[in-house]
Amino acid sequence: MIVCNELLGYPRIKIYQDTEMFSFSIDSVLLASFVTIKRKDEMIMDFCTGNAPIPLYMSLRTNATIHAVEIQKKSYDLAKMSIEENKLEDRIKLFHDDIKNLRNKYCHRTFDVITCNPPFFKVGEDAHINKNEEKTIARHEVMMTLEDAIREASYLLKDNGRFAMVHRPDRLTDIMVLLDKYHLEPKRLRFVYPQENKECNHILIEAIKTRKKGGLVVLPPLYVYDSNRVWTKEVLNIYNYNIEE
Amino acid sequence: MIVCNELLGYPRIKIYQDTEMFSFSIDSVLLASFVTIKRKDEMIMDFCTGNAPIPLYMSLRTNATIHAVEIQKKSYDLAKMSIEENKLEDRIKLFHDDIKNLRNKYCHRTFDVITCNPPFFKVGEDAHINKNEEKTIARHEVMMTLEDAIREASYLLKDNGRFAMVHRPDRLTDIMVLLDKYHLEPKRLRFVYPQENKECNHILIEAIKTRKKGGLVVLPPLYVYDSNRVWTKEVLNIYNYNIEE
Repeated sequence: MIVCNELLGYPRIKIYQDTEMFSFSIDSVLLASFVTIKRKDEMIMDFCTGNAPIPLYMSLRTNATIHAVEIQKKSYDLAKMSIEENKLEDRIKLFHDDIKNLRNKYCHRTFDVITCNPPFFKVGEDAHINKNEEKTIARHEVMMTLEDAIREASYLLKDNGRFAMVHRPDRLTDIMVLLDKYHLEPKRLRFVYPQENKECNHILIEAIKTRKKGGLVVLPPLYVYDSNRVWTKEVLNIYNYNIEE
Repeated sequence: MIVCNELLGYPRIKIYQDTEMFSFSIDSVLLASFVTIKRKDEMIMDFCTGNAPIPLYMSLRTNATIHAVEIQKKSYDLAKMSIEENKLEDRIKLFHDDIKNLRNKYCHRTFDVITCNPPFFKVGEDAHINKNEEKTIARHEVMMTLEDAIREASYLLKDNGRFAMVHRPDRLTDIMVLLDKYHLEPKRLRFVYPQENKECNHILIEAIKTRKKGGLVVLPPLYVYDSNRVWTKEVLNIYNYNIEE
């Protein structure tokens, strides 16, 4: 069933979802808020965009053109519906493609910023394998690996361009090793905790394309729920971006 | 001037310090508390032990023999005084040596656990260069590098042995890349923040010697001070280890 997610009663951003498929979740919204976007940025790319929550949320923060790529036709169709519903066709350019083909479409060093909320699980980590093929592709590295995302981001970013990703903490080692391999230097790292005194369940990381080493800052932790299991003020502010302006 | 640091009025562990030299600080105490020590552990090593705060604090948690190595003679002498003062000569074996020589003294795969609070700064990061040579050696990678510590730890650890280190967050990328290079897989990571809403200033990391990838857990953050600038309960509990038993 296709539903339009009108978040928290603020229909500023409408996102269509298929309840049978992978639903966008808070991690995408956090990434769209976390990534550094500068006024002079002109070209932004979102890999593995799914139903496009990241470009839709980023559109509240920038006038740059946001390119977004999704390999799965059903997710692409939902993303298209959402972009049209929000009247953002001029600002979000959506493509149904494999990120590994992008270097045939764009020049080396095209983008100021690339974001990615990739499939979190390695193939073989079958605890969470979904029978539904779309969900499996969205969650597992079936069509692309972490290395694909990092290698292609490095190729497509301008020098000093930023690559921002959300992932699970148990992949942090892989992420650090691969970023280093492709000359993306981590500069900002933030750990997301479901609640105080719980283990971290998501990491937000931003790297810069440079061969200059060092300078990583670990930001204060981000807590999603308070002790009453309601969203913390910070998370509410992230969801309500621009509402309070 | 040589002073005996009787922490918080609990003289359970006495540590001699020279006020002209590098003073041990909370990072060492946090590491001694953070590292996983198991009942069956028999051989523990502390690299770059300084005036031996880590072995002294670990001695409260284990009956294993703790070996400790310090390259600087003055620090070694202070460590020796402290170990004798605490009557721990039988349990803490102190050596005045370079960690790069240890593979001539010990067999490959000797230790269950190795801890290290290494010099934090690369040579050339001169913002904090001390004119006092001892302090410079304790703080900068003059006599040994991060790679030396990780390579030698990997050599000396048993399979599935643990390597635990405290460091600065801006070296996290180097640490991750080097641990990966020497087959030490990060398993536990904890970020230390001076206070809520401040950036992290220390990281605690524990890796296991194994070629099996994955399984990293990011623990809840550790705050040193509360909003009144007094130590948090958790830090007080760490300092007072065993007092409450």
